[in-house]
Amino acid sequence: MPVPLFFCRTAYSSRPTSYDTIPPMNKPIRFAVAQMNPTVGDYAKNTRKIIAWIRQAAAKRADLIVFPEAALCGYPVWDLANKKQFVTEGLKHLDLIAKATQGKRIAAAVGFIAPCKVHGDRETGNTHNAMAWIEKGKVRAVYHKQLLPTYDVFLEDIFFRPGRETCVLPWRGFKAGLTICEDIWDERYPVKPLRSLKDQGADVVINISASPYYRGVAASRDALLRGHAKRYGFPMLYVNQVGGQDDLIFDGRSIFSDAKGRILFRAPAFEEGLFFFDWKPAPQPHEVPLPEWTGEPKEIYNALVMGLRDYFQKNGFKKAVIGLSGGIDSAIVATLAVDALGAGAVKGVTMPGPFSSKGSWKDSEQLAKNLGIEFEVRPIKEMYEKFLKGAGTRKSTGKAVPSVAMENLQARLRGLELMFLSNNEGRLVLTTGNKSELAVGYCTLYGDMAGGLAVIGDVYKTDVYRLAWYRNTIRNVIPKAILTKAPSAELRPDQKDEDSLPPYDILDTVLYLYIEKNLSSDAILRKLKKRVSPAVVAEVIHKVDHNEYKRRQTPPVLRVSEKAWFGRRMPITNRFKG
Amino acid sequence: MPVPLFFCRTAYSSRPTSYDTIPPMNKPIRFAVAQMNPTVGDYAKNTRKIIAWIRQAAAKRADLIVFPEAALCGYPVWDLANKKQFVTEGLKHLDLIAKATQGKRIAAAVGFIAPCKVHGDRETGNTHNAMAWIEKGKVRAVYHKQLLPTYDVFLEDIFFRPGRETCVLPWRGFKAGLTICEDIWDERYPVKPLRSLKDQGADVVINISASPYYRGVAASRDALLRGHAKRYGFPMLYVNQVGGQDDLIFDGRSIFSDAKGRILFRAPAFEEGLFFFDWKPAPQPHEVPLPEWTGEPKEIYNALVMGLRDYFQKNGFKKAVIGLSGGIDSAIVATLAVDALGAGAVKGVTMPGPFSSKGSWKDSEQLAKNLGIEFEVRPIKEMYEKFLKGAGTRKSTGKAVPSVAMENLQARLRGLELMFLSNNEGRLVLTTGNKSELAVGYCTLYGDMAGGLAVIGDVYKTDVYRLAWYRNTIRNVIPKAILTKAPSAELRPDQKDEDSLPPYDILDTVLYLYIEKNLSSDAILRKLKKRVSPAVVAEVIHKVDHNEYKRRQTPPVLRVSEKAWFGRRMPITNRFKG
Repeated sequence: MPVPLFFCRTAYSSRPTSYDTIPPMNKPIRFAVAQMNPTVGDYAKNTRKIIAWIRQAAAKRADLIVFPEAALCGYPVWDLANKKQFVTEGLKHLDLIAKATQGKRIAAAVGFIAPCKVHGDRETGNTHNAMAWIEKGKVRAVYHKQLLPTYDVFLEDIFFRPGRETCVLPWRGFKAGLTICEDIWDERYPVKPLRSLKDQGADVVINISASPYYRGVAASRDALLRGHAKRYGFPMLYVNQVGGQDDLIFDGRSIFSDAKGRILFRAPAFEEGLFFFDWKPAPQPHEVPLPEWTGEPKEIYNALVMGLRDYFQKNGFKKAVIGLSGGIDSAIVATLAVDALGAGAVKGVTMPGPFSSKGSWKDSEQLAKNLGIEFEVRPIKEMYEKFLKGAGTRKSTGKAVPSVAMENLQARLRGLELMFLSNNEGRLVLTTGNKSELAVGYCTLYGDMAGGLAVIGDVYKTDVYRLAWYRNTIRNVIPKAILTKAPSAELRPDQKDEDSLPPYDILDTVLYLYIEKNLSSDAILRKLKKRVSPAVVAEVIHKVDHNEYKRRQTPPVLRVSEKAWFGRRMPITNRFKG
Repeated sequence: MPVPLFFCRTAYSSRPTSYDTIPPMNKPIRFAVAQMNPTVGDYAKNTRKIIAWIRQAAAKRADLIVFPEAALCGYPVWDLANKKQFVTEGLKHLDLIAKATQGKRIAAAVGFIAPCKVHGDRETGNTHNAMAWIEKGKVRAVYHKQLLPTYDVFLEDIFFRPGRETCVLPWRGFKAGLTICEDIWDERYPVKPLRSLKDQGADVVINISASPYYRGVAASRDALLRGHAKRYGFPMLYVNQVGGQDDLIFDGRSIFSDAKGRILFRAPAFEEGLFFFDWKPAPQPHEVPLPEWTGEPKEIYNALVMGLRDYFQKNGFKKAVIGLSGGIDSAIVATLAVDALGAGAVKGVTMPGPFSSKGSWKDSEQLAKNLGIEFEVRPIKEMYEKFLKGAGTRKSTGKAVPSVAMENLQARLRGLELMFLSNNEGRLVLTTGNKSELAVGYCTLYGDMAGGLAVIGDVYKTDVYRLAWYRNTIRNVIPKAILTKAPSAELRPDQKDEDSLPPYDILDTVLYLYIEKNLSSDAILRKLKKRVSPAVVAEVIHKVDHNEYKRRQTPPVLRVSEKAWFGRRMPITNRFKG
């Protein structure tokens, strides 16, 4: 039977229970920060981990262990939240977790999905995004998230109903205020949960989050937490989920700020673990700065490694295969795969075609050697010629310069080889397209777009180079030839990307302003002054708009920017010229 | 310059203006029902149509012309609403429309997107889904939609902010209450716009909608309108958008109910047009029943024809190509394409492989002949054998029974042929997979799933047969052999779908309960009593869950059911067993 759920009411703070008769201790409070990587829907596994960590934290005499938002079920669960069975199953497991705290001093805060009393309301979803406060074998209180993000990659209004009550719990002489993720990102909402917590006398605030990574998010979170802690004069513990879930990457980096806005504790980025932090107000505490590499290529690189690894592990894939073209994109994807899965799990295949340079083969071979991965050569030339011979009756041009159909044919024959190998050897195909290509449609459906995960589909070409340079500083694995050659699809003689596209530095600047900053062509031109012509801007925007149909058919694209494809919803049928 | 927008306030009804000094006429009110098919983002074209229809309606002495929700910009516009330029452009065109009413007696109600005064709020979007009431060259009032659907295929909370005020306009002796779509689907919302309109004395209510089609929606709308009109005692005019927009199909079927809940006017389904209706209260008015074919195969068939035609027309595609397998799915897609685009625009290609039956070729040829479409035979056998020969080193089995890799290879070689033809001849490939196949993953990525539009991806296999039987009642175009043969992918010797799947009538029943009704396996078993074994239900559910990754890579799937893939958001990485 599920545990009875005592819904948290504001009255709690004025109704002292036996729980808060324990006098404040002179020794510091020990927080156990459970920076957990849950698996969506795997209640058994998540519960085992939660219970093991509670025991571990109790053994280390922690006072409170805090798990991330939705730690019990994983996040985001989308329409799973609308399955009654899914919610019920969660409650059963919450009961097991509660029992595990029996006879222990430690309290536990666990994110889960709570059922909703009013059903069938269309204004919002029919469950709550909730936090259970567990002590002495029981769920002492349940708090419901009040601010539900519904923008970009978040659609919580669809699945959840907002809580209406603030929750302050008397605990060990403190008044602990509970919040979940968006509750503290309150700037643009009329409801201000932290203001209410302050009014009710909270003197420490817990926030459990599942806040996905993008470049720059760490600094934003720091500023947010510092600002709030200082403004309201209470210390805040922020515990974030870590790990990959389809397109999303959660970076962890849980933090603690004292009441003066000083960050005194930081859990690492992209690393699951149970971390401890002893807190006692002190006049000169030791602040911990953000690591230097925050927002740098190293950070994006590590994010992608985690996203890739988790997509494999959580879905039960063991091995990967990558088409190596001799270019920078496939090189960085192969390197990421090796760092995520180990060299033994990765195979590189080079598939020279009629217009491939010698380098495409040799450089790929060198890369594979440097990475220590299996390497195979599967030329597509014969299949290409055979196909065209058969296609003679189909008005194929037969000219020296291949038609678009013939260019795409080459890309698709490579897709065919990779997918055959995928089926035959049980390997997931990783696609190697970058964000610049996906943006302007410089890629072939069912060709280079074929695969199970788009690893760098949210990384602009110019950033791909930065990732490669960074990775080579650790060990020189990507051959210099790959780093320095001019980008080319090699689908016709002497083809260069810049024959069809503006130079990548210009292209990426325009794309960034159009996609991430959502600017109109006029605004982009004003911003770039005379550095880019109106014709170029118009052409780039046209290409982005026109290629929505291709992006509709991509596999999940690991998200590392503030506006990735996953959170950008555009109609395919669209005649607006932005 | 955009017109100044006079925001509608409730005070309006108590502040009579010169507009309502015109005494109520003895002759009937003439409504012009502008059941319009707008194109998303094509302001120029939509505006031209709106102005032309206003003129036409004025010439026919209509008192009021009512356009659908978002008629000016099309619906849904998704993230376009978050582009400032998009909203501004709309206002400029609204101004042109207003000018077109100058010197005319007619009033016009037009749906558009209005800017929002408060920016940067994250609780909702930053625009309003709005209706302009236009008279004598001016926008007399702007009403903001109050109830914003945010579930299934709707995400209005992301883009729009709810209006907070009801709008009653004194007009020709009436008090006209304004509502937009969801405003009247108020059952599950605490806010009740119609109740407020009643309280403010509204005696006729206008509703402009963009309500997408699904089987059964017409009866729901009828019941809703009848119920409201009767309950509140006011007549209601409901004007719905018509046409296809990516996955969504809008069916039109605008209606008018008198104050006693009698439907006195119906515009046709799936047909754009300007319709007139004279209304005067009468003791024995003539009620118009729903056509007999409502909810029947004919309805779904017509919906698909419109969805297909509009995807082509609005995106500028002229010609289609379809792989004909000799099976029922490709036969019905070809038939739909001919009905949507004309026989001259459609090409059928049969691509016999090593395990194709003779029928697959001959029946396809007969179908093409019956439909009068171009027909081509492109055998894949040689390419298949050549590929396998080359693949000899790749541990290909070489056995008589092909491996999964070899089965998929055949499907992908067909995809290759179709896409080559697509590029070469400028034809959009139509995919032919049905909902049952997409549900359980009985389809090949980049093979039979390759294409620009999934025409019957929301139609269960058993319904595909119903569509075919229906179509043959008009003219016998689908050969009997196609209708009666056992479904087979023909990718290995003597293969039948039912070797891998439960019989389709059972499969579809389980799928319907799992997908449309969102039931758990236990609930499905209870519902079906002993007709289906637990093992079968578990296997079907497992397949649906496990194949989310394939559906992630489909082209738009025309929606004809209440729960189509487009409005079902499930994680790929998901270990929950439903």
